[in-house]
Amino acid sequence: MEQKTENQKSDQDKEFVRAITPKAVDYSQWYIDVILKTKMMDYAPIKGFMAIRLEGYAIWEKIQELMDRRFKETGHQNAYFPLLIPQELLQKEAEHVEGFAPEVAWVTKGGDEILNEPLAIRPTSEAIICDFYSRWIQSWRDLPLLINQWCNVLRWEKATRPFLRTSEFLWQEGHTCHRTEEEAEEETLKMLEVYRECLETEMAIPAVVGRKSQREKFAGALRTYTVEALMSDGRALQAGTSHNLGQHFAKGFNITYLDQDDQLKYVWQTSWGVSTRLVGALIMVHGDDRGLVLPPRIATIQTVIVPILTKKDRERVLESVRDLADQLKDKLRVKLDDREEYSPGWKYNEWEMRGVPVRIEVGPRDIDKGHVVVVRRDNGEKTFMSRDDLFEELPRLLVQIQDDMLQRALELREANTRSGSDYEEFKRIMTEERGFFLASWCGEDACEEKVKDDTKATIRCIPFDKELEDETCMVCGKKATEVVYYARAY
Amino acid sequence: MEQKTENQKSDQDKEFVRAITPKAVDYSQWYIDVILKTKMMDYAPIKGFMAIRLEGYAIWEKIQELMDRRFKETGHQNAYFPLLIPQELLQKEAEHVEGFAPEVAWVTKGGDEILNEPLAIRPTSEAIICDFYSRWIQSWRDLPLLINQWCNVLRWEKATRPFLRTSEFLWQEGHTCHRTEEEAEEETLKMLEVYRECLETEMAIPAVVGRKSQREKFAGALRTYTVEALMSDGRALQAGTSHNLGQHFAKGFNITYLDQDDQLKYVWQTSWGVSTRLVGALIMVHGDDRGLVLPPRIATIQTVIVPILTKKDRERVLESVRDLADQLKDKLRVKLDDREEYSPGWKYNEWEMRGVPVRIEVGPRDIDKGHVVVVRRDNGEKTFMSRDDLFEELPRLLVQIQDDMLQRALELREANTRSGSDYEEFKRIMTEERGFFLASWCGEDACEEKVKDDTKATIRCIPFDKELEDETCMVCGKKATEVVYYARAY
Repeated sequence: MEQKTENQKSDQDKEFVRAITPKAVDYSQWYIDVILKTKMMDYAPIKGFMAIRLEGYAIWEKIQELMDRRFKETGHQNAYFPLLIPQELLQKEAEHVEGFAPEVAWVTKGGDEILNEPLAIRPTSEAIICDFYSRWIQSWRDLPLLINQWCNVLRWEKATRPFLRTSEFLWQEGHTCHRTEEEAEEETLKMLEVYRECLETEMAIPAVVGRKSQREKFAGALRTYTVEALMSDGRALQAGTSHNLGQHFAKGFNITYLDQDDQLKYVWQTSWGVSTRLVGALIMVHGDDRGLVLPPRIATIQTVIVPILTKKDRERVLESVRDLADQLKDKLRVKLDDREEYSPGWKYNEWEMRGVPVRIEVGPRDIDKGHVVVVRRDNGEKTFMSRDDLFEELPRLLVQIQDDMLQRALELREANTRSGSDYEEFKRIMTEERGFFLASWCGEDACEEKVKDDTKATIRCIPFDKELEDETCMVCGKKATEVVYYARAY
Repeated sequence: MEQKTENQKSDQDKEFVRAITPKAVDYSQWYIDVILKTKMMDYAPIKGFMAIRLEGYAIWEKIQELMDRRFKETGHQNAYFPLLIPQELLQKEAEHVEGFAPEVAWVTKGGDEILNEPLAIRPTSEAIICDFYSRWIQSWRDLPLLINQWCNVLRWEKATRPFLRTSEFLWQEGHTCHRTEEEAEEETLKMLEVYRECLETEMAIPAVVGRKSQREKFAGALRTYTVEALMSDGRALQAGTSHNLGQHFAKGFNITYLDQDDQLKYVWQTSWGVSTRLVGALIMVHGDDRGLVLPPRIATIQTVIVPILTKKDRERVLESVRDLADQLKDKLRVKLDDREEYSPGWKYNEWEMRGVPVRIEVGPRDIDKGHVVVVRRDNGEKTFMSRDDLFEELPRLLVQIQDDMLQRALELREANTRSGSDYEEFKRIMTEERGFFLASWCGEDACEEKVKDDTKATIRCIPFDKELEDETCMVCGKKATEVVYYARAY
């Protein structure tokens, strides 16, 4: 029996020996290795679908909690709208249906009954929500209407990648109505800032914000704003979008209100969303060749305690780490890993792979010396910490790690943000080095398309705070109107 | 302008004059009036679907929070599985597909592509989850596997009623795997008890627990256990179920593990769920002719403060209630209703209808006397409370209200629980008075069906703790094997 357990142990160790593909060798494979090995997801029997496993879902739950708190602080409340949308409603806003129709999954049969009209599974909920809003909103007193929904949506995607682009994903979609254009614009930008700040503060992901080009905007929106983050391979990821819908949907769905001046007016609307792709962003911004690296504020386990058990000292080490876990649990999210069927080395590997920010090792000699070994996941730094200082020092260390992670991500982004006006140089960079590239643009679709054809890069956004340095468009040489961030994106 | 606002005010007041249909006049209409007038839901453009509006969703969020905490305390973690299930998987467990096939909605088209195999929208997730589990579980080390999912499900229902039975609903479904039959049975009963206790403690809903008859059990389960609550019209509501799935799915989906004795064995499984129908239960157990009555532990607003503003004292009253709200907000969930476009009377009506447990009224004279008026929603009791005592007394009052509400619900259930062996008397009671009826049963489907045909009542459950008093079946007079609760149910 003893023999058998030993054999099994070495079997388990092999799992770690078969290492994660290094980023430098194959970044896509590294990403897949990390999410499969950490059991964040698994492929579904239907192409393009996935299950989000415990490790991945715990991160999503944390993101939900942190975002939802901010939505409520800014006056929003949650509701739930139907999954299925009658075809007729989807068609009420022309641009919207054109944009989404190719991605819609259709229900044509319910029970034994063939449906008269096919029903769309929501790719996004503007159409169904606007139908309700047209009845719910009557008077200026009903405004602003500030509603958010957490749900699943379906977009029949051809090329998928776990978390980043899947046919089904989880997200939140805020849908608000306002009396004036200014108020709607203010809301759109407010929620964009909520996203930017939450990504930066909680996920240690610095994001570039700005407006989308007409070509990249949401189907049916007046203007789309975006939060764009740079992944560690130099590709950009659209991490969240906030749309000023203008009165496009209000007119399509006849959402009007009686104003104080007794006039019937169309409302002004916004919608905004972030999705489970943020889990992918977190992995790709911070992860390394050993696996996940979680920012302390997102990590469900912030510190793991691994006892080093010897036959002789087993009891007293166990007692000591149990005390320690108990004392720490009000200060931070701590886990004691006292499983006896795994070796300490195996556990170190596992918790490193799973990205737990801090590991504490405690052996008999550490107890005698009144200290513990503290290992940072983000930079591998190993220090001794006096057990008496731990309660003060450990929370401080977590803050430090969070700051350092943001700082590193910022530095990475800055090192990978270039600018210029030489189109040949731009093409070389987009192909060889990637990253963000700031350049002047004439505002024409043709140039945007040419860049995409030549380099696969797209305009990620038109930043708010950049002055036009170059008077001419990098691509065509005509008069420039905007500065834009180009990048190849996920 | 002033004139207009006044006119609008009286328009709004009319909304309350057109009262909710009294329960005694038409219970079904009362229920619909309450949920529509409190804006808990609205009907969707597709028959059988609904939107859950802010008021209804806030209750569901609270139920989620309270249940989820208990799931985690009992060692479960959340995950997310695909919405769509290939037809082939749904067919792997024979009883399961037979039970659910008539209710399944089918996706047959994705984007422009006609699918080769239709995909079911999950009516419940056993089939898709078991497919994953068959790959995730290899060794005894992987057990127990304790996973829960919060999601939407779809069942194509013919007769629907908001919250109680809708084609789409929100729920949680726990899906666990175990090494032994005993362990699975223990889990099944543990989660049943979590449901019972949560309903009782948090929602002030006393529930009867027991086993379902074979006829009423979940399609594919070995045994189904249930939590049954009595609504205020004497009809029962299945509030939650917990299934011991035995090895039915394990065999259908080949979910095996290598045990410590080196034998490959099938796992033992459970599943358990509660849904948004709990929101309906809450309304029908506690609601009255004035609207909702929310137990303090579920209410998002536990106390509302309504200032009585006069031209002369406006400022000092506002200042006083703002102070009060500020001081109370760490003790309980308080809201200050300082809207100026509504009269105090209008607000009293609104907050009563919305079921807020306690209302505090503050006028200039109350300030002078150093007290406030406190009105309980559950029994209408109005008392003066010294402002100094409020911080101690108010939390105590909320506890008292919660207890009283449970007590009244218990009394209602007891007054409506009868027993006997006279089938004619039983038929009269099920038709005229309803409620629970305890009787002996032979265990035969035929008698169960006869009862249903004669009275529309069904066996709600076979309770754990009732001794057989009568030796013969109430229906057929043959030897009885069980005592059962009959009731007409939603």
